[in-house]
Amino acid sequence: MLETVKSLLQPSKRSDVPPFIVMDVMAAVAALEAQGHHVVHMEVGQPDRPAPVTALAAAAAALGQRIGYTEALGTPSLRKRIARHYRDTYRYDLDPGRVVVTTGSSGGFILAFLALFEPGDRVALANPGYPPYRHILTALGCEPVLIETSAATRFALSPEALIAAHRKAPLAGLLVASPANPTGTMMEAQALARLISTAEGLGIKVISDEIYHGLDYAFAAETAAKLSDNAVIINSFSKYFCMTGWRVGWMVLPEPLVRTVERLQQNFAISVPTLSQIAAEAAFDGKAEVEEVKHGYEENRRILTEGLPKAGLDKFLPVDGAFYLYANISRFSDDSLDFAKRMLNEAHVAATPGLDFDPIDGRHYMRFCYSRSAADMHEAVKRIGEWLNR
Amino acid sequence: MLETVKSLLQPSKRSDVPPFIVMDVMAAVAALEAQGHHVVHMEVGQPDRPAPVTALAAAAAALGQRIGYTEALGTPSLRKRIARHYRDTYRYDLDPGRVVVTTGSSGGFILAFLALFEPGDRVALANPGYPPYRHILTALGCEPVLIETSAATRFALSPEALIAAHRKAPLAGLLVASPANPTGTMMEAQALARLISTAEGLGIKVISDEIYHGLDYAFAAETAAKLSDNAVIINSFSKYFCMTGWRVGWMVLPEPLVRTVERLQQNFAISVPTLSQIAAEAAFDGKAEVEEVKHGYEENRRILTEGLPKAGLDKFLPVDGAFYLYANISRFSDDSLDFAKRMLNEAHVAATPGLDFDPIDGRHYMRFCYSRSAADMHEAVKRIGEWLNR
Repeated sequence: MLETVKSLLQPSKRSDVPPFIVMDVMAAVAALEAQGHHVVHMEVGQPDRPAPVTALAAAAAALGQRIGYTEALGTPSLRKRIARHYRDTYRYDLDPGRVVVTTGSSGGFILAFLALFEPGDRVALANPGYPPYRHILTALGCEPVLIETSAATRFALSPEALIAAHRKAPLAGLLVASPANPTGTMMEAQALARLISTAEGLGIKVISDEIYHGLDYAFAAETAAKLSDNAVIINSFSKYFCMTGWRVGWMVLPEPLVRTVERLQQNFAISVPTLSQIAAEAAFDGKAEVEEVKHGYEENRRILTEGLPKAGLDKFLPVDGAFYLYANISRFSDDSLDFAKRMLNEAHVAATPGLDFDPIDGRHYMRFCYSRSAADMHEAVKRIGEWLNR
Repeated sequence: MLETVKSLLQPSKRSDVPPFIVMDVMAAVAALEAQGHHVVHMEVGQPDRPAPVTALAAAAAALGQRIGYTEALGTPSLRKRIARHYRDTYRYDLDPGRVVVTTGSSGGFILAFLALFEPGDRVALANPGYPPYRHILTALGCEPVLIETSAATRFALSPEALIAAHRKAPLAGLLVASPANPTGTMMEAQALARLISTAEGLGIKVISDEIYHGLDYAFAAETAAKLSDNAVIINSFSKYFCMTGWRVGWMVLPEPLVRTVERLQQNFAISVPTLSQIAAEAAFDGKAEVEEVKHGYEENRRILTEGLPKAGLDKFLPVDGAFYLYANISRFSDDSLDFAKRMLNEAHVAATPGLDFDPIDGRHYMRFCYSRSAADMHEAVKRIGEWLNR
């Protein structure tokens, strides 16, 4: 009987995915703050500012109606508005019929992986990278293939590295992200185009995670939709539009995959939060507001790229986009988890150990998120400098 | 080259799940209404009324704050409030630590299936049943095992049928629903207890879908949480609390599974829509309002159970709960899809063919949803009567 109960409570093997280490950092931060300490937050990758007022006003107005299910693919007006965004931003004419609204980019990844890949399929990812890429793939029975990046390719995936991985054992998919999390690096349009055409020439399906589009400082990010008719694009209102908690994003699909994803969404989600869809559509009218927020990130980026080297952290990857700076800490430690704990407890600056993003070399890196105020950035530089030079 | 492009656009085999037929019905309804016809809606399973005013007021107030991510398991205050609901409703003391907030019941099914089952696992379901049960299971590599129900067991799953299916080939799981969709039937607490203990004695993991709890007319629905410490409960604010488009639900888990589901949710969803969590918590204070809505359903149920037999539809399953009446139409047709189309076009009453819910005998059944007004119900009975007696 005890054996039976034990087996009833046994989780599946496929559900054995690692947690986010950042969550443990957050718990430690909360404990410090409960003791009355002031902590500079650079650990969580989310905007400090609320959604644009246009979005908030639209949501408030919609509360007067019944908030029922919508079409599984999203409301027709939001899909149309997203398509227009591609003409305005990328000068690309996109058929709204290829746009699918999703429950955040998270919802998009689940749909994309299920629609494109079979169990056992190998999917290439840049290392370091966003942890849920590999954890969702694993839980869905696919094999994440981590490809190392280095300074030689500006820490981006190269066609050569992709070909080498494909020769070892055939790849079914490739996931690219520019700007990338945790590194903040970007790929130039030409480099992205070369990578995508190399992949597609080998029959490898391409997913482009464009969630940090809009937050590009080094140069303009290019959408993979413009570079290939076959690529699957994933995006979200979370970052550029400051709407993390609304859980609304979108995909751009090759037309032949739309019906497949529609059937999956009908079954896996029914539809995407209605109020969030209404707010998201209105967020496009709040671009002036989010552009101002972006200028704040640019200023933060300047403060860190100038200040951190003086503080002692002088090795970091190109700080091209998103709101992340990925710093090498090997001068000080070869255990980023310990470094994060000490920096938090001794300097009261919270950041995320690279181990969350890179199982191979993450112990030598820390991710600093610069989505808070300029005053916070100055304070962080000061505290880190004093701490490292103690 | 053409071959390569074709393979790039080839959806995975596991994504080949059927659509909801009800969606085609909805498209036909829209076409009729566009021509100026008045259609009585009995096709979509969602409340006609908005969320309680307490929920709307809480959402409106929250629009003044930043809507960021929440804890992956849900906000502590909502988890606590849900636990209190179990004491108030079922006289069951539930540890809030066992409650997980989910993105609708849909989010709960994905988490439960991933956490409990391996690819290849056989999971027993009552037939007829809610289509996404089998389609999500299939997409996740599991095998739905449909068990036929009949009048002999009040159209509920019986321990005997479960044992028989388990003998054919071992079952890993069982999903029960009371009240059930599409049938509206319920299981008495004792029958449910017997079924669960039979399953668990055989080492079969039990998931109880309690999304229609609160909408019980024949007798009070019992939660499986009270009947077993090992069962996984799935529920939602969509039906009883009239919050479909908000996409917020919850699970009650055996304590040892909480951490597994937390890690899955961190990776698969990050968190549940924040505004919806805030509104859901306040919805509990709007019980008087949703109880009134429930009384409306009870009146609708009376109108249909008295009126439909006079109209000619005199064979239906016990109308115990939810807001569905599942009628046998074999006196008139052995093609429910054709029946649905003709009833829509000739009588202007929309309902859903049983084929959506029952691949075996669904051609002999129609599902009527009675979540609209009493006036609509009277009109439906009148129109169906005139049409069938033409």
